[in-house]
Amino acid sequence: MIRTAAVVGTGLIGTSAGLALSRRGVHVHLLDTDESAARVAAARGAGSVGPPDGPVDLAVLAVPPGAVARVLAEQQRRGLARAYTDVASVKAPTALAVAHGTPQPRSFVGGHPMAGSERSGPLAARADLFEDRPWILTPGPETCPGALNRVLAAVSLCGAVPVVMDPHAHDRAVALVSHAPHLVASLMAARLADASGDTVRLAGRGIRDVIRVAGGDPGLWTDIVRANAPAIVEILEALTKDLEALTRALHALEVSPGTEGAEDALASLGELLARGRDGWAAVHRPGGAGTVGAVTLTVPLVGRPGEVDRLLHAAEESGIGAQDIRLSWSGASTELSASLAASRITAESVRRRLADDGWRVSVSAAP
Amino acid sequence: MIRTAAVVGTGLIGTSAGLALSRRGVHVHLLDTDESAARVAAARGAGSVGPPDGPVDLAVLAVPPGAVARVLAEQQRRGLARAYTDVASVKAPTALAVAHGTPQPRSFVGGHPMAGSERSGPLAARADLFEDRPWILTPGPETCPGALNRVLAAVSLCGAVPVVMDPHAHDRAVALVSHAPHLVASLMAARLADASGDTVRLAGRGIRDVIRVAGGDPGLWTDIVRANAPAIVEILEALTKDLEALTRALHALEVSPGTEGAEDALASLGELLARGRDGWAAVHRPGGAGTVGAVTLTVPLVGRPGEVDRLLHAAEESGIGAQDIRLSWSGASTELSASLAASRITAESVRRRLADDGWRVSVSAAP
Repeated sequence: MIRTAAVVGTGLIGTSAGLALSRRGVHVHLLDTDESAARVAAARGAGSVGPPDGPVDLAVLAVPPGAVARVLAEQQRRGLARAYTDVASVKAPTALAVAHGTPQPRSFVGGHPMAGSERSGPLAARADLFEDRPWILTPGPETCPGALNRVLAAVSLCGAVPVVMDPHAHDRAVALVSHAPHLVASLMAARLADASGDTVRLAGRGIRDVIRVAGGDPGLWTDIVRANAPAIVEILEALTKDLEALTRALHALEVSPGTEGAEDALASLGELLARGRDGWAAVHRPGGAGTVGAVTLTVPLVGRPGEVDRLLHAAEESGIGAQDIRLSWSGASTELSASLAASRITAESVRRRLADDGWRVSVSAAP
Repeated sequence: MIRTAAVVGTGLIGTSAGLALSRRGVHVHLLDTDESAARVAAARGAGSVGPPDGPVDLAVLAVPPGAVARVLAEQQRRGLARAYTDVASVKAPTALAVAHGTPQPRSFVGGHPMAGSERSGPLAARADLFEDRPWILTPGPETCPGALNRVLAAVSLCGAVPVVMDPHAHDRAVALVSHAPHLVASLMAARLADASGDTVRLAGRGIRDVIRVAGGDPGLWTDIVRANAPAIVEILEALTKDLEALTRALHALEVSPGTEGAEDALASLGELLARGRDGWAAVHRPGGAGTVGAVTLTVPLVGRPGEVDRLLHAAEESGIGAQDIRLSWSGASTELSASLAASRITAESVRRRLADDGWRVSVSAAP
C-alpha cells in the first residue's frame, strides 16, 4: 500500500496524479523547479509543497521524456522514495538509460497514463483525469516486485486500468495512436494560421476536432517527438505516400474529367476514404461489426407520432447506438420496421428491455 | 414567408431541415428516390411522403453536389416550387451549371449549412442541427429577390445564421476548413485500419477526435472532393511540403542526435508545432489573444481549501476559461494571486460578478 508519495513536476499530469492520490488519503509532496507551479498545485489540493523528511513510498516523476533519466538519478541519490515511476509518453530510451546509468534500476517502473488534454499546467489538472483509462507500465527484467506493486497500487488509486507492455511495443503503438496523429493535426492546423476571419468563421465541429490536439504545448511535444522519432518517421513516410497518391488522383480529376484516368482516380479516392472509415471503425467501434451485428432484433412500427424517436431512445439506453439501427419499409406491408444489430452477449437484455417498454420484438441471427 | 416546402433527398441534412421546418409549422413534402428513406424521415416527423399537388413555396434539394444541377432542372420542369436552394458543400460548379442549363436560373439560390455529423441518413437527423450555425448562401446576379427572401426565411426558421458569399470564395474556404481536414483525417485513420487490438486499446480522446470525421460516408465524400478538387489540391500540396520537411527533421534527429543538424531539426519541429498552435488558436479562440487579454483582473488568494477551484468555477460562469487564468506566487508576499485575462467588453461584468461572490478584484490594462 501507499501512504506517502512525491510528485516531481506539477504540470497537468503530475498535479492530476497528486489530486487523485490526495483524494484517496495519500500524503503527497509536490516538487517543481518552478515553485509557482507547485504552489498552484497545492492550492488546488494536490498535496503540500516541498520535499519529505524521509523516503516516501512512491515518487511519480512527471517531467518531459528527455528529462526522466536525469531526474530519476538525482532523486535516487537524494533518497526521495522507495519506488519510482514516470509518466512520459516514450518508454524505450528511458528504459535503456535507467538500466545503464541509474543508482537503483530495480526500484524504477516506467509508466504512461493514456490520458491528457490539449491544455497544460496545474490549473488544467483534474482528479478524475485517469479514471477508466489504460495506464501502461513497462517493468524491466531488473525491476523488483515490490516497486511494481507500489506503482500498481498508485494506478488503482487513480482509478486507471494498468496494462503491462514491452517498452518498444509501447513506443510503436503510441507513435501510431498518439504522436503521428498529433503531428498530422499540427500540420493541418498550421495551414489555418493565416486564414482570414471570413474563412475561420466557417469552421465547424469537424475541423475543430481534427486540430484540437494541436493546441498542446509545443515545447513538450518537441521533446516527445524527438524521443520517439524512429517510430514516428515510419508512419509519416507511409502517410506521405498516401498523400501523394491522393494529390495525383485529384489532379487527374481536375485536368481530365470524364476520362478513364479520371475514373481510376475516383476509384482510388473512394478506396482511401473507405480505408479511412475502416480505421475510424477500428478505433471508434472496437470489437467490430462482426461481433456487434451477430444478432438482429426486428421491431414493427405502427406509425404513431414520435414512435421512431422513442425506439431510438430505448435502444440507446440498452447500449445500441443509432448507427446499429436500420429502418426499412416494404411496399407490400405498407409498414416500417426497425432492425437493431446487437452482439450475442447483449441481444437478450436488449430484447427484454424493449419488450418491457411494450415493443413487439422478434430475434434472428444476422444474415 | 414560407407555408409549404419540399425536401428532395431525405438524408441527414434533408431530414434535419424537414424536422426543423415542420417544427415551425411549415407543411413539408418529402421526396427521395429511395422511398424507404423518405418513409423513415416521415416517421421521424420531418413531413409527409410524396410530391405536393401544386408548387410549394420552397424546395430544398438535399442531394450530393454532383447531382444538384440535374435534379434542379428536373424539378423546375415539373414545377415543384416557386424557389429552390441546395445544401451541397461545393458551390461554384453548380452556380455555373445553373446559369447555363436550368429552366429558371432566377429562382435558385445556392446554399450550404455549415453543420453535419460523421453519421448519415434520416435516423441521424436532428431538428436542432443548424441552430446558431452559419448557413452560406451564394445568390448570383440573376437571382430574383423573392427567391432569396424565401431561402432566408427557411434559414431563419432552422435557427441558422445566413451568410452571403461568392461561390468561389466559399469553395476555397471550405476546402481549407472542411474538405482538406476531412482527407487528412481519412489518411490518418487509414493507417489504423490494420492496427492490432493491443494498439487500438491505447487510443484515447486525441486520436478519436483527429479521425472522427473519417467515419463519414465515402460515397458522399468522393462526390464532394471531386467537385472541389482544384481548391483542395492546392492545400494538399502545401501540406505535402510541410510533411516532407517534418520527416527530414525527424530523420536528422534519429541519425545524428546532438549535432548542429539535429539542433536545426529541433528548431524546425518546434516552429511547425508553434505554427500549428497558432492555427488551433485561430479556430478555437477567434478574436485572438489581443482582444481577449486587453484587461487583467487580479484576485489575491488567501489559501483556503477549495478556493482556487471556486474561483475557476466563478470565472468560467462569467465566460473566462481556465486558459485565460494565470496563478502566480511571489516569495515576498508568500501569497498566490490569480490573473484573469478579459476583453475590454467583458471585463466590467466579470469584475462585478466576482466582487458579488466576495472576491477582492483589482483591474488593470494588460501589460
